[in-house]
Amino acid sequence: MTETGVWLIGARGNVATTAITGARAMARGETDTTGLVTGRAPYSKLALPDIEGFVFGGHDVRERSLLETARGLSENGVPKPDVVEEVADDLRAIDDRIETGTAINCGTAVDDLADRESLEDRLAVGEVVDQIRDDYESFGRGHDLDRLVVVNVASTEPPLEDPDRYDTREAVERAIENDDRELPASALYAYAALVDGHPYVNFTPSTGSALGGLEELARERAVPHTGRDAKTGETLVKSALAPMFAGRNLRVKAWEGHNILGNGDGKVLEDDRNKAGKIASKGDVLSSLLPDIGHNRVRIDYTPSLDDWKTAWDYIHFEGFLNTEMKMQFTWEGSDSALAAPLVLDLVRLLAHADEHDESGLQPQLASFFKAPLGVEEHNLSRQFAMLDEYVERHTTEVMSE
Amino acid sequence: MTETGVWLIGARGNVATTAITGARAMARGETDTTGLVTGRAPYSKLALPDIEGFVFGGHDVRERSLLETARGLSENGVPKPDVVEEVADDLRAIDDRIETGTAINCGTAVDDLADRESLEDRLAVGEVVDQIRDDYESFGRGHDLDRLVVVNVASTEPPLEDPDRYDTREAVERAIENDDRELPASALYAYAALVDGHPYVNFTPSTGSALGGLEELARERAVPHTGRDAKTGETLVKSALAPMFAGRNLRVKAWEGHNILGNGDGKVLEDDRNKAGKIASKGDVLSSLLPDIGHNRVRIDYTPSLDDWKTAWDYIHFEGFLNTEMKMQFTWEGSDSALAAPLVLDLVRLLAHADEHDESGLQPQLASFFKAPLGVEEHNLSRQFAMLDEYVERHTTEVMSE
Amino acid sequence: MTETGVWLIGARGNVATTAITGARAMARGETDTTGLVTGRAPYSKLALPDIEGFVFGGHDVRERSLLETARGLSENGVPKPDVVEEVADDLRAIDDRIETGTAINCGTAVDDLADRESLEDRLAVGEVVDQIRDDYESFGRGHDLDRLVVVNVASTEPPLEDPDRYDTREAVERAIENDDRELPASALYAYAALVDGHPYVNFTPSTGSALGGLEELARERAVPHTGRDAKTGETLVKSALAPMFAGRNLRVKAWEGHNILGNGDGKVLEDDRNKAGKIASKGDVLSSLLPDIGHNRVRIDYTPSLDDWKTAWDYIHFEGFLNTEMKMQFTWEGSDSALAAPLVLDLVRLLAHADEHDESGLQPQLASFFKAPLGVEEHNLSRQFAMLDEYVERHTTEVMSE
Amino acid sequence: MTETGVWLIGARGNVATTAITGARAMARGETDTTGLVTGRAPYSKLALPDIEGFVFGGHDVRERSLLETARGLSENGVPKPDVVEEVADDLRAIDDRIETGTAINCGTAVDDLADRESLEDRLAVGEVVDQIRDDYESFGRGHDLDRLVVVNVASTEPPLEDPDRYDTREAVERAIENDDRELPASALYAYAALVDGHPYVNFTPSTGSALGGLEELARERAVPHTGRDAKTGETLVKSALAPMFAGRNLRVKAWEGHNILGNGDGKVLEDDRNKAGKIASKGDVLSSLLPDIGHNRVRIDYTPSLDDWKTAWDYIHFEGFLNTEMKMQFTWEGSDSALAAPLVLDLVRLLAHADEHDESGLQPQLASFFKAPLGVEEHNLSRQFAMLDEYVERHTTEVMSE
Ligand SMILES: NC(=O)c1ccc[n+]([C@@H]2O[C@H](COP(=O)([O-])OP(=O)(O)OC[C@H]3O[C@@H](n4cnc5c(N)ncnc54)[C@H](O)[C@@H]3O)[C@@H](O)[C@H]2O)c1
Ligand SMILES: NC(=O)c1ccc[n+]([C@@H]2O[C@H](COP(=O)([O-])OP(=O)(O)OC[C@H]3O[C@@H](n4cnc5c(N)ncnc54)[C@H](O)[C@@H]3O)[C@@H](O)[C@H]2O)c1
Ligand SMILES: NC(=O)c1ccc[n+]([C@@H]2O[C@H](COP(=O)([O-])OP(=O)(O)OC[C@H]3O[C@@H](n4cnc5c(N)ncnc54)[C@H](O)[C@@H]3O)[C@@H](O)[C@H]2O)c1
Ligand SMILES: NC(=O)c1ccc[n+]([C@@H]2O[C@H](COP(=O)([O-])OP(=O)(O)OC[C@H]3O[C@@H](n4cnc5c(N)ncnc54)[C@H](O)[C@@H]3O)[C@@H](O)[C@H]2O)c1
Ligand code: NA
Ligand code: NA
Repeated sequence: MTETGVWLIGARGNVATTAITGARAMARGETDTTGLVTGRAPYSKLALPDIEGFVFGGHDVRERSLLETARGLSENGVPKPDVVEEVADDLRAIDDRIETGTAINCGTAVDDLADRESLEDRLAVGEVVDQIRDDYESFGRGHDLDRLVVVNVASTEPPLEDPDRYDTREAVERAIENDDRELPASALYAYAALVDGHPYVNFTPSTGSALGGLEELARERAVPHTGRDAKTGETLVKSALAPMFAGRNLRVKAWEGHNILGNGDGKVLEDDRNKAGKIASKGDVLSSLLPDIGHNRVRIDYTPSLDDWKTAWDYIHFEGFLNTEMKMQFTWEGSDSALAAPLVLDLVRLLAHADEHDESGLQPQLASFFKAPLGVEEHNLSRQFAMLDEYVERHTTEVMSE
Repeated sequence: MTETGVWLIGARGNVATTAITGARAMARGETDTTGLVTGRAPYSKLALPDIEGFVFGGHDVRERSLLETARGLSENGVPKPDVVEEVADDLRAIDDRIETGTAINCGTAVDDLADRESLEDRLAVGEVVDQIRDDYESFGRGHDLDRLVVVNVASTEPPLEDPDRYDTREAVERAIENDDRELPASALYAYAALVDGHPYVNFTPSTGSALGGLEELARERAVPHTGRDAKTGETLVKSALAPMFAGRNLRVKAWEGHNILGNGDGKVLEDDRNKAGKIASKGDVLSSLLPDIGHNRVRIDYTPSLDDWKTAWDYIHFEGFLNTEMKMQFTWEGSDSALAAPLVLDLVRLLAHADEHDESGLQPQLASFFKAPLGVEEHNLSRQFAMLDEYVERHTTEVMSE
Repeated sequence: MTETGVWLIGARGNVATTAITGARAMARGETDTTGLVTGRAPYSKLALPDIEGFVFGGHDVRERSLLETARGLSENGVPKPDVVEEVADDLRAIDDRIETGTAINCGTAVDDLADRESLEDRLAVGEVVDQIRDDYESFGRGHDLDRLVVVNVASTEPPLEDPDRYDTREAVERAIENDDRELPASALYAYAALVDGHPYVNFTPSTGSALGGLEELARERAVPHTGRDAKTGETLVKSALAPMFAGRNLRVKAWEGHNILGNGDGKVLEDDRNKAGKIASKGDVLSSLLPDIGHNRVRIDYTPSLDDWKTAWDYIHFEGFLNTEMKMQFTWEGSDSALAAPLVLDLVRLLAHADEHDESGLQPQLASFFKAPLGVEEHNLSRQFAMLDEYVERHTTEVMSE
Repeated sequence: MTETGVWLIGARGNVATTAITGARAMARGETDTTGLVTGRAPYSKLALPDIEGFVFGGHDVRERSLLETARGLSENGVPKPDVVEEVADDLRAIDDRIETGTAINCGTAVDDLADRESLEDRLAVGEVVDQIRDDYESFGRGHDLDRLVVVNVASTEPPLEDPDRYDTREAVERAIENDDRELPASALYAYAALVDGHPYVNFTPSTGSALGGLEELARERAVPHTGRDAKTGETLVKSALAPMFAGRNLRVKAWEGHNILGNGDGKVLEDDRNKAGKIASKGDVLSSLLPDIGHNRVRIDYTPSLDDWKTAWDYIHFEGFLNTEMKMQFTWEGSDSALAAPLVLDLVRLLAHADEHDESGLQPQLASFFKAPLGVEEHNLSRQFAMLDEYVERHTTEVMSE
């Protein structure tokens, strides 16, 4: 079995910490595969790298240690306190492999939480990129990795304006060279990954690899990448439910989605600029699945006492036969990090698999994981799973016929 | 275009009345196809009989006229009072074509609401069947119909015990001949339809054509039939939502479904024996979609003030990564008849189509319509729709290649 | 029995139209006293003017007739279409008694809906007031009224900045004289009422009589007035529920209230300036009842398809013994106008009673009707009702001892 | 300060264990008074015995230790694991003071969980009572207590049929003497307490002191007693909310209450006989507060995965002005034991106070604590609190004037 490295941008955040804690708890037999998509049939039949063997590292801009984050989370019940203590040594070791990254164009909300001087404060953009590539490189070398998957789980950036200017690889590289200080951090991390052939996952609504120029680069380097904005709660439910209304020809007159959450993500999203990207990817799902929808709003509010828990209330006003008006409502109460963390591990496994099997560029079979799946129009959750089923079918048949 | 007759068992009930009112309102341009599955792409591309041309008749055991039922319903808002008045003459005319049927083994709850002497009170079972065949026959002849589709929308019967004794066509026919008074009414209506080649829909949880002997008969006569228990509300939502939990490998520890409804159906279901079949078909959906489910209960309660409206509250307790316990709840507030009626019309159209195209026996492509689709294991709503998509694909390609 | 006139500011709006329709439907025996606080014991024992005898008139700035508004509302089910037709002639007659008012400082949202040139467009503030007084006066004379109660049910105005400048009667009168164009319309209507001794109700969050100078005026003229912002839905529930948390020493960490509504009121409230006053009076209830509340937010969103219906979702996160975190949620689905209209009639009756019995100035016994009861700190609904009980007790004992 | 003993019947159950753990956690400064009614103004002004000084003992019929119960509960989050460990020694010490009690007429559900031979298995009823009196007596003596308050927190018994036969003290005492084996355990514990002057609290829906003969006894011995069935969740909310509907003259057409819970209490309540008493006391609240209610049902279902958590869903269908139908729904998600435990401590304090101040017999000022307050018709929560306010007022004035 090959050694797989996982490089987390935002490595000390809630999602990253929960993913690491969970992976180490699995390695120590403290928990099982519940919540892992790759833990269930038929995906469990694929030859995927073992989570127990993952080697973690990453970038962050905060000092707060992994263990502190994990203990903070456990006060809210996830992960449980005893699990955190079981893996405390692992967390300490991994913490030493977290480097300072760049927070360029991440907005003042991120600047406020950063307590390290971030790279762009002292380096030109080109130098920032070189430093990041070096960090990836030394980590890979230092741990004798066969493959390094880079995952963006950093705070959501404000949307990039006019992204078309970076539509070619050349435009991106010229910008980096010329110290163009409008490229956002997520795109720099993505560039640094793709240029050196590291598979890249954008778990967030930030730009990441979603620039024409980076897609071109990925194709040229034959490296797989995927994103964006993992679908973990309210939007997940929408993508399962909305097809029911469409299928039955019930006309949705209004779908109101109201999210309240309390963690660091919630705090950053309080800033309207950072929130913009999130709202967009959440809203698009419905307008795609229900083209005739009358009214479609998503709200995200910060409710400090909820900490890492998120509650969504959705209200669906719809019309049926004989102009009959009816209603459906749901509430969803989930631990944000417990929902997100296993998907990080799933995506690393599946992207490593794609890389191993020369599936490069965008990975449409991973659409079910994202609110705004790159390169895929399909938002129907069942159909998205069917795409992954087919991929697995194809790859397990191959294996058998080998 | 051919003339399609629709024979409704339970023709004066809420579902039947709303289906008839809706069909006539469509014919008069008073409403559109919202709520009709066959009204949306790609199904709207099939060459289906026009609803506007449907000729209605049926059996019932109550005197209350169609118009009275319609007006009663409209006090609850569905259909709207002005729509009922627009079609009042049509309802009066159709009322004259409703014959007295049989209520044998329908339970005391049905006996209580029957105010006509039903057929079995004065006839042997064989004679009952002959009378029903005659009723179908004279209706078809009288209206010069090319095809008659029989639909069971009568009150739910108590489940038949030991149905295996009717596993062959021969066993059924011998029972009828020998005046076996344990066959339920729904099976007699179904037998009478199939033996004369009339397509048959069982919209209810009652036995209907779900006997080995009747399936054999249908195959022999090459007539299509389908059922059972139309999926209109809470169970529909379950079949859309449960796959999401399965897909994400989230373990459902408990799914409590609590339904309150107020109409005649609710009243009959207050009787525990009549309720038994309903509970079973509602419960099976989850145990099929979530084989590891911990606890799965469905309650149906009668709340008189709700009249024809049904509210379901579902509470889903599930476990995710790192043994994290989370919750989802939903409420569904629907007009029972407005949800059911268009499906009656859809099923008539699709069964007529199947009959026209020699698709006989069970019709798996119609699984999405039912809580307990005969002959189909699949309960995932999206996959059920995919089955209908394929059918349509097959039949529209045929048409084009003709 | 004396003749009571009811002068409605915003007479063609939903609340006004529903109040008038309901009063006339009662007069015609088409509906009962359900929803009327004064229709239940012990308040029904007070000698209050009969609703059936109310004579209606009012101001508005729109052309849309009462009958049109009523028919529009009835498409949403409240009032029922047949009731509207029963009282159509009454509505037509009342419509003729509606005069054009002033919309000064009501914000652009109101300007947009106004389709009459409003008074301030052509008159100085002093002349506007004179015109309003004339309108009240001629109406009273024309219908031979013993008493005229003026009720503000016009659209919500943006809050008045720096209201302290109108803290004395003198300041108000000087402002009117000097054509001070910053006084809002509601205050002008209130001044015109109080100065001529007409009891005044402010049903809205607008300024109305809540200026020091107008309170002084009311005391001097010995006229009763009351307000503000009628408590009809979510806030009503809050005032009943919050004392339960306080009573049991359960600490509310967050109370999120999310309101969606679709009528004209909702549209005007979409304008953040008009919304400000509403949010304030809604929010204050909790901070008064739960001084230690951790987080308290109210949202009001416009969802067009809901028309006159309002849904509120409230999420209450609280802490109990041993630092245990628990949750309560509720949804409230009400017809805004059906909830508000009877209170308009109640308040007219109770204010007429107060006037009759020389209870002048602010009327603390009416606190249960308002989100921000003038001159009363008490927000506990039960205690507010206890205040009305005492008033009734006092006045029925008087009657008996006479 | 005097020494107060607390004798818990059902001492190893969830409520008892949480009360003891909480009291000891308070003594050790691990938690505060949140959730304690006596912890808030104005009740905190009464001179009540300190919880920190309570001396605990009790009866049970199970072997499972207090510490085991506490650890089991803490797996569900309440109390927190570290709090349990802090008080583990206290729990062990208290465990030694728990005696075997009687389970006579507690139903088979209780027999199933009992793993000790209970008193009535080997003793006549009179001897059982003597043993219980002895247990109280030795405990009081052994710990040099000034006062012993006996609290019934044992599993709910099936209702006693024909309780009128025990309407006099004499009838009760004759029954005990004659080994009448139909008296339920709860009444024996209560008799033993009252006859020796120990104040008695019935926290459960079981019979306890609610027999004519025991009330007579309490009056004769001048000892205070109170009950029954503590109001901790759904019913508490009902008693706060229902007065709002009554106050606004809104007619409740249906109130459906559906409770799911998962602990030992839930398991015992699965037995329809044990459930009967609970349903009755829950249902009565609404029929008292809303005499015109149309439909009123309470369901309690056992959902194992919820453990000590209870979720209630209530659906309220009501009618307002102009026959408008509207709806309110709520869900309540609470930790059963965290809600109940502080009330046990409150009631001990308040009953000790009553005893100290010669307030004997039934204690109407404690009505707010119970679903079926003995001797009180008032179910309006606010009015019940007003009764306690008055008591406190009376007693604090006394103190001051002394
Ligand atoms: N939790 C979910 O369900 C979920 C779902 C979809 C997407 N996401 C996204 O995942 C991301 C992480 O969420 P979280 O809850 O872990 O947030 P978090 O605030 O707990 O963690 C974010 C971490 O990123 C770090 N960071 C910020 N900008 C950085 C930068 N430029 N370079 C390196 N590190 C940086 C922060 O210091 C912090 O440690 C967010 O963008 C969120 O929107 C989360
Ligand atoms: N409404 C829905 O959403 C829905 C969904 C699935 C299934 N169903 C089923 O549809 C059926 C009809 O529901 P409904 O709401 O119209 O009920 P309903 O009570 O309004 O109507 C039933 C009618 O059937 C008649 N009837 C009863 N037994 C009969 C018999 N043996 N022969 C002839 N007539 C008979 C009754 O007199 C009545 O007129 C029920 O079985 C119900 O379970 C309804
Ligand atoms: N419906 C409720 O439950 C409720 C509760 C509390 C308060 N209110 C308040 O009652 C008011 C009326 O609500 P609605 O739903 O009837 O709104 P609406 O928009 O239907 O009616 C408002 C009417 O006022 C008129 N108007 C606006 N400004 C005016 C002015 N300066 N002079 C004269 N007429 C004017 C408008 O033309 C319109 O006809 C709002 O302020 C609302 O906030 C309503
Ligand atoms: N938790 C709440 O919110 C709440 C509210 C109101 C009333 N109650 C009542 O409090 C009681 C206790 O609830 P719980 O959750 O602690 O239940 P539980 O099952 O955890 O505990 C009950 C205990 O009583 C013991 N027991 C049973 N019969 C006994 C007897 N005859 N003598 C001595 N011990 C006996 C059992 O062995 C068990 O240890 C129940 O009657 C319940 O209905 C609880
Ligand atoms: Na590659
Ligand atoms: Na005493």
